[in-house]
Amino acid sequence: MKYRPQSVVRLITALQMLPGVGPRTAQRMAESVLSMPVEDARELANAIANVKKHIKICSQCHTYTEEDPCPICSDPDRDRAFLCVVQTPDDVEAFEKARGHSGIYHVLRGVLNPSKGIGPERLTINSLLNRVEKEGVREVLVALDTSFEGEVTATYISEKLTPLGIKVTRPAMGIPMGADLDYLDGETIKRAFGARREI
Amino acid sequence: MKYRPQSVVRLITALQMLPGVGPRTAQRMAESVLSMPVEDARELANAIANVKKHIKICSQCHTYTEEDPCPICSDPDRDRAFLCVVQTPDDVEAFEKARGHSGIYHVLRGVLNPSKGIGPERLTINSLLNRVEKEGVREVLVALDTSFEGEVTATYISEKLTPLGIKVTRPAMGIPMGADLDYLDGETIKRAFGARREI
Repeated sequence: MKYRPQSVVRLITALQMLPGVGPRTAQRMAESVLSMPVEDARELANAIANVKKHIKICSQCHTYTEEDPCPICSDPDRDRAFLCVVQTPDDVEAFEKARGHSGIYHVLRGVLNPSKGIGPERLTINSLLNRVEKEGVREVLVALDTSFEGEVTATYISEKLTPLGIKVTRPAMGIPMGADLDYLDGETIKRAFGARREI
Repeated sequence: MKYRPQSVVRLITALQMLPGVGPRTAQRMAESVLSMPVEDARELANAIANVKKHIKICSQCHTYTEEDPCPICSDPDRDRAFLCVVQTPDDVEAFEKARGHSGIYHVLRGVLNPSKGIGPERLTINSLLNRVEKEGVREVLVALDTSFEGEVTATYISEKLTPLGIKVTRPAMGIPMGADLDYLDGETIKRAFGARREI
């Protein structure tokens, strides 16, 4: 006989749809929902329901947005000839916070990964190619994760765009600010030494 | 300028009310809510709202329940003279799953912790004492965590109930099934050796 009330079982099951949440964590979370003030639980429930109601995908750059096109795509002050390709909407958020980019973005929604069956058609690469041609983009800065898949994807994009006369660039690689050199991986050190500059 | 849409910021904030969820985890969870099918997100939101609507506290044993009294307290087949004291409703679930207890339960909702200001009045200890007297309980099995606070709480309960002629017991301590003896803590080994039995 299982004793736990049905609505608690249902909550524990539902919470496990979240990434990194297994049965034990879900149980702990359900316990905390049960003991939190009812307004807090309502806020959490509404925030989840609300986000699905209000968030769309920007038809230009494919980020999450409440209005289409998104605030960046519709901002006349952004440099529309300079486009930065990123993996996720969170990357856009991070680069905007750092005020790192004056142009527009394009969210790929992942990277190529043939072994997982993720080809170009699963990403927004076709939309990127259309956009670059139509909108007069002159430089595409490919800012993807520096994983093997990220490298493959960057190369693929570069091979598509360079023949069209587009300048394809990537962020400089090197030693990050405040890094402890002992702990850096060999590839980073090799690239940083190879790209060394005179002081 | 922060670029993230308002409803996503709201969701990331709300998710951080869950235990163990910081800004990074909340961001990852929000991302997964955004990309899950809308029915799944609705199920998650409803499961949270629903649990607060349907779950009450059992007026007898203080566990979570959809009907008051809870199924165990209202089950005529349970031994009402044998009461097991536990910390949380999840303990009730665990003991029921193991079919470990034939009597009724009482959920303390924590343990005494003077340094955190948790005295007997913050737990359901008074209700336990009333119940034991009124309901003809003869044995109280105190099954709390074997922490310092658990021990203090067990002693406190025992000091209140023993003078009333109630038998107060605790589960046997020893080596758990399948345990690797190298990894057991000294206190467990000491207790297991002290309580050794002839084969």
